[in-house]
Amino acid sequence: MTMAAKKASKVPADLDAWLSANDSRIFDELNEFLKIPSVSARSEHDGDTRRAAAWLHEKLAKIGFTTETIPTAGHPVIVAEWRKAPPGAPTVLIYGHYDVQPPEPLDLWTSPAFEPTIRDGKLFARGAVDDKGQLWIHVKALEAQLAVRGTLPVNVIVLAEGEEEIGSEHLAPFVEQHANRLACDAVVISDSAMFAPGIPSILSSLRGLAYFEITVRGPSSDLHSGMYGGAVVNPAMALAQILATLHDKRGKIAIKGFYDKVRSFPAAVLKGMRSLPFSDSRFKKDLGVKALGGETGKTTLEKLWTRPTLEVNGMLSGYTGEGAKTVLPGVSMAKVSCRLVPDQDPDVIERLLKAHVKKVAPAGVTVTVQPLHGGKPWRADLDGPIFDAARRALQAAFGRQPVIVGEGGSIPVVGDFARVLKAPVLLVGFGLPGENAHAPDEWISVDNVRRGLRAMAMLLDEYVA
Amino acid sequence: MTMAAKKASKVPADLDAWLSANDSRIFDELNEFLKIPSVSARSEHDGDTRRAAAWLHEKLAKIGFTTETIPTAGHPVIVAEWRKAPPGAPTVLIYGHYDVQPPEPLDLWTSPAFEPTIRDGKLFARGAVDDKGQLWIHVKALEAQLAVRGTLPVNVIVLAEGEEEIGSEHLAPFVEQHANRLACDAVVISDSAMFAPGIPSILSSLRGLAYFEITVRGPSSDLHSGMYGGAVVNPAMALAQILATLHDKRGKIAIKGFYDKVRSFPAAVLKGMRSLPFSDSRFKKDLGVKALGGETGKTTLEKLWTRPTLEVNGMLSGYTGEGAKTVLPGVSMAKVSCRLVPDQDPDVIERLLKAHVKKVAPAGVTVTVQPLHGGKPWRADLDGPIFDAARRALQAAFGRQPVIVGEGGSIPVVGDFARVLKAPVLLVGFGLPGENAHAPDEWISVDNVRRGLRAMAMLLDEYVA
Repeated sequence: MTMAAKKASKVPADLDAWLSANDSRIFDELNEFLKIPSVSARSEHDGDTRRAAAWLHEKLAKIGFTTETIPTAGHPVIVAEWRKAPPGAPTVLIYGHYDVQPPEPLDLWTSPAFEPTIRDGKLFARGAVDDKGQLWIHVKALEAQLAVRGTLPVNVIVLAEGEEEIGSEHLAPFVEQHANRLACDAVVISDSAMFAPGIPSILSSLRGLAYFEITVRGPSSDLHSGMYGGAVVNPAMALAQILATLHDKRGKIAIKGFYDKVRSFPAAVLKGMRSLPFSDSRFKKDLGVKALGGETGKTTLEKLWTRPTLEVNGMLSGYTGEGAKTVLPGVSMAKVSCRLVPDQDPDVIERLLKAHVKKVAPAGVTVTVQPLHGGKPWRADLDGPIFDAARRALQAAFGRQPVIVGEGGSIPVVGDFARVLKAPVLLVGFGLPGENAHAPDEWISVDNVRRGLRAMAMLLDEYVA
Repeated sequence: MTMAAKKASKVPADLDAWLSANDSRIFDELNEFLKIPSVSARSEHDGDTRRAAAWLHEKLAKIGFTTETIPTAGHPVIVAEWRKAPPGAPTVLIYGHYDVQPPEPLDLWTSPAFEPTIRDGKLFARGAVDDKGQLWIHVKALEAQLAVRGTLPVNVIVLAEGEEEIGSEHLAPFVEQHANRLACDAVVISDSAMFAPGIPSILSSLRGLAYFEITVRGPSSDLHSGMYGGAVVNPAMALAQILATLHDKRGKIAIKGFYDKVRSFPAAVLKGMRSLPFSDSRFKKDLGVKALGGETGKTTLEKLWTRPTLEVNGMLSGYTGEGAKTVLPGVSMAKVSCRLVPDQDPDVIERLLKAHVKKVAPAGVTVTVQPLHGGKPWRADLDGPIFDAARRALQAAFGRQPVIVGEGGSIPVVGDFARVLKAPVLLVGFGLPGENAHAPDEWISVDNVRRGLRAMAMLLDEYVA
């Protein structure tokens, strides 16, 4: 922390001038990137996802990176390297992803998901903030350095994957397999949000994920609810009953053993979170709700950043069209996911959930719990030169010291980087609350893109300063 | 019951002989009727539905009925009258419908839905049993009487509608508007099934219906389940929790006041139901389930015929596609319907359900309960000349006394006939379990058609005997 204050830096004038001069091209190219519907979850978009990879490959090669697109069993990984820094210079690995969430429901987008549009200082598009826009900040920060100085102060590896939105299944094995090539002194990731407009933020923790599909099967076909209703276990009702057992009256998760491995957060981090300017009433207003939920006796930020959850993500059974159809469904399905905190493990949670469901499922239906994907939770140390450099660069670009925040979401690969590469991971994001990362009308602040470009260009200088 | 036994009747030889001699023509004409895809739910079939009405009109006129096709705001109603019975003879109104269910999914039909085909003594076609085949039994029974005797022993009105499969919306007002013209001493309807092969059946009760859509609204848009999960009331989970409060542990409906108006069935009817040859293990096997559900302490037939229900018909929230999407849904929906028994009323049930939901809904979400449609339950008296006549005619045609059965489903118009025309309603059906009335491979037993023709021709004699 003392290092952070060693000088009141400014964004170097040469980088700032180049970024200003190239501003419209930077956004034009970002728009090209955003127009490619690289929805990794949908096989009908596989061609688009490949196209996004090829597009990014070309851009990295063009700025002077030795770039390789490496196939995996899923979407390919791009590894772009620049290793001409002075001897002894450290190596920074920048990670991002070129795939995006599905855009549905399409009719809730104000402008089409894949037609980037600026309104009120916000750039709207699927992937604008998650993560094409933020990955683009790094690519263009590197280009600024190379264009202005003809070199970089550090060696840089850019690692971009196309499966983040479907669980990064092939990235951990990839990192393990290429551990030597990816060896680095720090990992930098921008795939998160700032605490509030104007408040740059360093992310100190991520929740893990354990995502399941629960299927309840009853009669071998849909039945007429009049002719059979009242004598058959209804799979939709059984599902509702099972889901209703998953929380207790105080909002805690009622699965036996669920909290056993939860390690409490350091007092200083919790204290810092409590001092952040956060308003429950504003939060409720933004969400359009009259009351909040979750565990009683915890602050909202504690609930979001430090506590595990269990949420229903989707639910489907029987007739869901217009009007009345008197069907007794043969099957029902819910998507259910847990966010995990250190040291919970998705495999253990799977076992506990399966045991719980087995215990509460009524006779007359068959219930299966299929794990769809998992990721371990993560917590950073926050000490060392990359964090100090980030503090100075963010201070310079945003005009104030960053705050330390937690994150309720998951970036499963962060834990893998820390584990395999044994390097500190700096998570510095330029999104903002309300950015609709996985919802219609996703956006990124144009001002944050500009300040992010300057901060990330400067970060490389500061890291070796 | 004493009346029923007054003579061991046989099907009159003249009617029997005529029906045998005309057997192939009867089926040929039925096939013509079945080939017309009169799918009332689909506007692209409106021409076919009109064609079915015209076809039936012509057949009724040809056998000597004064026939009129009367337009409604939907599909037309056919009223065919024969009023030349001796002075003082009673009037019988026969009701049926010429529309059919949609045939989809088409690929599950062994032979095409609108190409009638006989296999193993079953006539397969959409509408074979529901209701063209059963309506046709009456038309040809009337023709037999008229052909052989030159007259009918009673006055007869045939009332055929084309909207039964879409809720008979215009029939109740039609009956009210034409109450004088439709005045009668008994209503006869064949639109149901026999309890089992060889066991003729009289239907003594129908359950009513109260169908609702429950919508739970939380945050004004879908949220990222990582970024917001654990601090917001999840509308999908809230819906599950609300649905789970609707039954108690014994399978009874836990809505306050729900059973207040339930009038128990006569002991003799319940005793008759318990003596019917019904096997729970066969029922389970047919449905592909290992255990049955519903109220503890009731037999399956009691549950299906004499007890009210609450079933989930459909459920939808959030992401339901392939794979994992970490969304916290902004809204969730369930279709929920109650089957009602005398003297429950759908409007009262709506009020009770709304009060219940209001009480159990968590803060942080807004819940609405929208009624989609309702129909009152119905129970017959089973006494009087039309029932006694039916017992004798069924005994003669099938060689055994009919049993009294209930029906879990609803035929809303039955209650309307009873209420407006103040006449007893005889429900005597010739379908069979497994007939696939609303599913692919709908069929009617050819033998049941032949016996039904004889029973219904004889019914008119017995009614005045």
